Amino acid sequence: MKMGKFIYEGKAKQLYETSDKDLVIVHYKDDATAGNGAKKGTILNKGVLNNEITTIIFKMLEENNIKTHFVEKLNDRDQLCQRVKIFPLEVIVRNIIAGSMAKRLGITEGTKINNTIFELCYKNDEYGDPLINNDHAVALNLASYEELDKIYEVTMKINELLKKKFEELGIILVDFKIEFGKNSKGEILLADEITPDTCRFWDMKTMKKLDKDRFRFDLGDVEDAYLEIFRRLGAK
Amino acid sequence: MKMGKFIYEGKAKQLYETSDKDLVIVHYKDDATAGNGAKKGTILNKGVLNNEITTIIFKMLEENNIKTHFVEKLNDRDQLCQRVKIFPLEVIVRNIIAGSMAKRLGITEGTKINNTIFELCYKNDEYGDPLINNDHAVALNLASYEELDKIYEVTMKINELLKKKFEELGIILVDFKIEFGKNSKGEILLADEITPDTCRFWDMKTMKKLDKDRFRFDLGDVEDAYLEIFRRLGAK
Repeated sequence: MKMGKFIYEGKAKQLYETSDKDLVIVHYKDDATAGNGAKKGTILNKGVLNNEITTIIFKMLEENNIKTHFVEKLNDRDQLCQRVKIFPLEVIVRNIIAGSMAKRLGITEGTKINNTIFELCYKNDEYGDPLINNDHAVALNLASYEELDKIYEVTMKINELLKKKFEELGIILVDFKIEFGKNSKGEILLADEITPDTCRFWDMKTMKKLDKDRFRFDLGDVEDAYLEIFRRLGAK
Repeated sequence: MKMGKFIYEGKAKQLYETSDKDLVIVHYKDDATAGNGAKKGTILNKGVLNNEITTIIFKMLEENNIKTHFVEKLNDRDQLCQRVKIFPLEVIVRNIIAGSMAKRLGITEGTKINNTIFELCYKNDEYGDPLINNDHAVALNLASYEELDKIYEVTMKINELLKKKFEELGIILVDFKIEFGKNSKGEILLADEITPDTCRFWDMKTMKKLDKDRFRFDLGDVEDAYLEIFRRLGAK
């Protein structure tokens, strides 16, 4: 499948058309941003690692009956995916309190909770991807209540599958962000990526952070963290 | 019922014990604040007007099978109420977009919506009463999922009753904030107040704001707005 016309450039990926109107090529970059673009940089080979990490995870999810946009990995940095219209929503799952939630509500990072927290944010850089709820999403025409129900149902399954998978690899899945889109048939598919850019991974034994927080907070060993996740997933 | 020991002072009211451990006296002050206490002032006779406005509204709600903390009005500024443990939650209902939601999400004030928006905020001055969702509330031990279901169910009924009541008086109920508490029997009761301090009221014909936004944004005629709501409700 040959790379066609450029469609869109995001913070970490580019999108290209293909000869099939229902398929796109997703190109993974090394660019890294944090704090809604306030901090910018590159992480050496991140694109290569994240392409393979997402490939492994999306294949595992597909094997467990989660519908994703993933079709196949084309090369080091490119993936063939179904073309979807992305819901302008970030769906966040929190198994342990960290990041923006800890900050917004004054809770110590690492606080354990008895329930899983699902959050919805409105993908809107100008307003800082604000937290919203279902009623806001419907009022803003971002999704219908029925679509949100479906999205939460799938997200819950994804959390269970990912938690188990990473636990087996000695990693705590603290939280993660996913995005959904609709293909031309109207099917709701998991889209975007699942990588150390979009998850918080803590090593179970050492509690070392193995994700983008190393870049966000200048903790060092940034490339190593991505490589460690890549290796534990059995990638080559 | 005589005023006993002072319990607590809020931004607009004081609370006193009575000889009955299950009853308190709520004293309505003229103090007004806005922007989480950033702006402070007084509105002449606000305490007197809001005491009567809440009395009329809570009596109307009680007649429609909404359980409230209200027992009786004692005098110009004092109300006898059931003692409740307040859920540290602000429950907000929006029929039209205005205020913090318009600002947070970049929507023009006055935008009409097809669904009613229910919001939950964590009553926490230090963190600016942040917006939360049910999962956050449960994780923070602010309420259980069952209590939240009950609170939303009652809030929906309250919105229908208030919208109808104010429509009859030529007023659009744009949005409002309510609070709930639990009495010693474990019953969930509507508590706090329903006044121009806690609602946005727009005159149906002139669209003039008849609420605390006149104080927040220095629009003038502040006292008159409270008096207008008081009068339309048939108070004397």
